[in-house]
Amino acid sequence: MESAIPQHLQRQRTRNRRMSGDHNPPYPSTVARFDPTLTQVVMAYFGVQYKDESDSESRMKALKEIVGSFGSARGPASWDRATFVDEAGYENMLSVGYWRDPDDFDDWFKSHGATWAAGVGAEDIGTFIEIVRPTAERFETLFSSNTPEGVAKLAHGFSDLVQEHAYWGGARDRVPLSQTDAMKPVGTPKVVGQGRHLRVIPSENVCLIRSGQDWSGTEGEQRRMYLDDVEPVLRAGMDYLRDEGQEIGCLANRYMTVVDREDRALEKSYGMSWWRSLADLERWAESHPTHLAIFGAAMKYLGKVGAAAQLKLYHEVTVPSASEQYFEYYNCHSKTGMLRIGETP
Amino acid sequence: MESAIPQHLQRQRTRNRRMSGDHNPPYPSTVARFDPTLTQVVMAYFGVQYKDESDSESRMKALKEIVGSFGSARGPASWDRATFVDEAGYENMLSVGYWRDPDDFDDWFKSHGATWAAGVGAEDIGTFIEIVRPTAERFETLFSSNTPEGVAKLAHGFSDLVQEHAYWGGARDRVPLSQTDAMKPVGTPKVVGQGRHLRVIPSENVCLIRSGQDWSGTEGEQRRMYLDDVEPVLRAGMDYLRDEGQEIGCLANRYMTVVDREDRALEKSYGMSWWRSLADLERWAESHPTHLAIFGAAMKYLGKVGAAAQLKLYHEVTVPSASEQYFEYYNCHSKTGMLRIGETP
Repeated sequence: MESAIPQHLQRQRTRNRRMSGDHNPPYPSTVARFDPTLTQVVMAYFGVQYKDESDSESRMKALKEIVGSFGSARGPASWDRATFVDEAGYENMLSVGYWRDPDDFDDWFKSHGATWAAGVGAEDIGTFIEIVRPTAERFETLFSSNTPEGVAKLAHGFSDLVQEHAYWGGARDRVPLSQTDAMKPVGTPKVVGQGRHLRVIPSENVCLIRSGQDWSGTEGEQRRMYLDDVEPVLRAGMDYLRDEGQEIGCLANRYMTVVDREDRALEKSYGMSWWRSLADLERWAESHPTHLAIFGAAMKYLGKVGAAAQLKLYHEVTVPSASEQYFEYYNCHSKTGMLRIGETP
Repeated sequence: MESAIPQHLQRQRTRNRRMSGDHNPPYPSTVARFDPTLTQVVMAYFGVQYKDESDSESRMKALKEIVGSFGSARGPASWDRATFVDEAGYENMLSVGYWRDPDDFDDWFKSHGATWAAGVGAEDIGTFIEIVRPTAERFETLFSSNTPEGVAKLAHGFSDLVQEHAYWGGARDRVPLSQTDAMKPVGTPKVVGQGRHLRVIPSENVCLIRSGQDWSGTEGEQRRMYLDDVEPVLRAGMDYLRDEGQEIGCLANRYMTVVDREDRALEKSYGMSWWRSLADLERWAESHPTHLAIFGAAMKYLGKVGAAAQLKLYHEVTVPSASEQYFEYYNCHSKTGMLRIGETP
């Protein structure tokens, strides 16, 4: 067992861990291990929003273009795509790319990303970009099995079993910056711009979580348990965050199905949510009935199947500074992502 | 807002709190405040176990005797009584007395308690005694409203709102000894004796929790919510601990209805459970589906009614040393209290 914080990011603490020193996790988890030379990554979400009746040519163009450009020079080291129907009835397809090097990203973005959102041009299609570029101190991962997903695809492998999990506060303890910084929010993001082209003035220390599940390997009773006992509870929590989350600091939530390279649904999903701060996310997790129900359902599943669990779970939590965030919305409805927080007067 | 640990028990810390320094609880709670001269209390449970068909004269004798003696010189400063039907189908009546001064208790016990358990003499009635005498460093309380119950009736009043609650780990942080001691268990209790008269060799740092609810003041929708939404979930958790708790470190659990001086049921109940350690209790609370469901139901209720909550909640958690415990069972069935852990070979 080892610390979730890699040696090269360990600092002289000025803040306590939330874990008690003798914590002994009841089930095993690992974290992604990145090369010490990796000091900052980019996670860039490119969204296309449309309806069945939307101009299909423009839609395909937007979707293909971004994936095509992912393949070009200095494109992401890894990417995946997921889809969901939002609360306004629009389908959304999000393509997320992960870069090892912000310089590569900046160069790529100049050629391919910067004009993409505004370049679709169809009246009934929205496009948006949500980007964070956290330093290595500002994100953490957690995996129930050593199958890389998300940012972990930039890693060189997985840790040994880590100590900092299976207690409340584990996510914070795994973010290296928590050793010296409370990561408190300063202000709230503000929507700016006019007409159909909007941006966001970011605030310090918002929090982004991508929290995923892969049930493609489940069979029999384990499959039934996931589909009947776990997933409906997970969905109810995701719906709550989407529809009422703002009252508790959740700025936006999407519960998505991952698709393959031909856009066919896989047996994988993830929730992607923006929070005013890590503390707000923690409070929801630790005390809100919707998350307690999710956690309880997961614990019940894990308690029954133990080490034979076929369901794979992972997440990545990022707490970017204001300068590490970028948001752009073009022709999107007013409940899209950060737009939910409302425009400034 | 103030610390749950009173000034006179604050020590130079050698161990971290589980609370983060800037924690701001989302709802108010208080703790009982005791006079600094109170250095050790006694909590003594006297149980009578019987069936409908048990010798009614002997039963009444046992029940009356203990309450009668509570009223004699150096008796408890406060007492109450609760009843439940156990897993073997026996009715049990527990009378618990609270003493401010162990010397008073010892003197009283010599005259009234020491021979009580073995003095009933009826074949079909069991009697038992479970006593802890924690120093002030070894117990904590928590109240949602300033209505004293249990050990708090020995207090001179309530604190201002305290900071150490509404996060996982609050109970530990409120026990003063946690400032300097992990309160780890050493060994497990052992049942000794033969025939129908059994005692227990205690182990270091077992944990006793009395966790109560008073719904006598609830009306309308709040009453419905407690009875329909909260209580069944609470009962399911209590049943789990009683029937399967041993696998997770719960040595015994009783879910009881408080009765008045004429033994009529009140609209108050409490769970009384023995744990191998505070850490085992914490683990159940933080991760077991049965407790997450209880906590979720309570949070849902509190979230809806806020400061207008009519339901009153409280608990007291004690972590006695081995020398602060005393158990005696006479003619009780083998699942009574600590007897569940089984006899030594």
